[in-house]
Amino acid sequence: MYKLVMLRHGESTWNQQNRFTGWTDVDLTEQGIREARAAGRLLKELGYGFDLTYTSVLKRAVRTLWLTLDELDAMWLPVVHTWRLNERHYGALQGLNKAETAAKYGDEQVHIWRRSYDIPPPPLDESHRRELAADPRYARLKPEELPLTECLKDTIARVLPFWHESLAPAIKAGKRTLVVSHGNSMRAIMKYLENISDQDITGLNIPNGIPLVYELDADLKPLQRYYLDAAGNKV
Amino acid sequence: MYKLVMLRHGESTWNQQNRFTGWTDVDLTEQGIREARAAGRLLKELGYGFDLTYTSVLKRAVRTLWLTLDELDAMWLPVVHTWRLNERHYGALQGLNKAETAAKYGDEQVHIWRRSYDIPPPPLDESHRRELAADPRYARLKPEELPLTECLKDTIARVLPFWHESLAPAIKAGKRTLVVSHGNSMRAIMKYLENISDQDITGLNIPNGIPLVYELDADLKPLQRYYLDAAGNKV
Repeated sequence: MYKLVMLRHGESTWNQQNRFTGWTDVDLTEQGIREARAAGRLLKELGYGFDLTYTSVLKRAVRTLWLTLDELDAMWLPVVHTWRLNERHYGALQGLNKAETAAKYGDEQVHIWRRSYDIPPPPLDESHRRELAADPRYARLKPEELPLTECLKDTIARVLPFWHESLAPAIKAGKRTLVVSHGNSMRAIMKYLENISDQDITGLNIPNGIPLVYELDADLKPLQRYYLDAAGNKV
Repeated sequence: MYKLVMLRHGESTWNQQNRFTGWTDVDLTEQGIREARAAGRLLKELGYGFDLTYTSVLKRAVRTLWLTLDELDAMWLPVVHTWRLNERHYGALQGLNKAETAAKYGDEQVHIWRRSYDIPPPPLDESHRRELAADPRYARLKPEELPLTECLKDTIARVLPFWHESLAPAIKAGKRTLVVSHGNSMRAIMKYLENISDQDITGLNIPNGIPLVYELDADLKPLQRYYLDAAGNKV
């Protein structure tokens, strides 16, 4: 039996302000830092150890991983950073808060973008693609891999190659893996592992900073899935 | 022309207490944290960017790298951790401060161990090798690679394969590299690059938290070597 541990980053400044964040590289709040440390301490107390860790190229995830590793006393563990674990790209909504978005597009439309599987928000313009291409994190991506917006389906399509090419082989090789990422990149992996429907996945909410554990069989089919609450209970 | 930047970790708790540290995994002091951040800010101000970073498996070096990357706004950069960049193993001296060492072994003997190229301090006993082998950082090393003590010559012998197999090929491939490590692992690379004599290398002191830049020709022969002082001057 294999175990995979996933963790959504701690609260970010734009989580706190209720803004669409996407690929914008905002940092953790003080609460987010506390959440990340608490996750690390909990994993340590429960005896979790890891061989290999993964995160996105966004600092709210990297910092959450660092704080977790610090608490685990395992700052030396190998870390793989991949853009494929980035949050869903929210297009023209990035930077807008709930009120601003509603004022600009109307509540109903915003609800559709939030809850639909395959309807992306309006894209940013082409200059955004040039900005991304100039960022060393994304410089080696093909032009068609640089998003101007994403629906959840798009996000899942770019996360799954990471599962198939990196994470699944590592787990099968016996590596104990920790993946620190974002709500929608976690949804991608959860949808695949549990065969969750297109409709249901958009309603699946993932809390910040709470370790999610999958126990997987030899074919990486889930046997159990649970969060670890602050007392160390499986919930 | 290539550039290689090396950085000795910031002040550690045992630097502060003047204790032989070696492979003991002590953390940075508050001053060490400030030194690491200052190094990162300085590199940022001077326009340094990196593609690939290296550090040891000891937390005073990893944390120095993390703080440097944070200030560089490049937390997503790939990091390679290797035991080959660890500090020189100080054997039975590890944990002793200057006064304790002098009281136990005499000033003259301590001076010999500090300044000789090929005389190691007394080894720790075999149980230390079992402790190291049980540490996941060192579990895959061959028994003969697990030191019970090291003279500087020994340290250099295990650092140089890292230079030849990892760092030099990366530099030649055009990667802009940052190496955050320790006094004696830096001496190893400096001795090799500059062909410093066995006698002179033991007297070469490397300050904590001050970036050291090598400009290298196509064969990785040094054209220039300088530290960056707080004002950004080459010294």
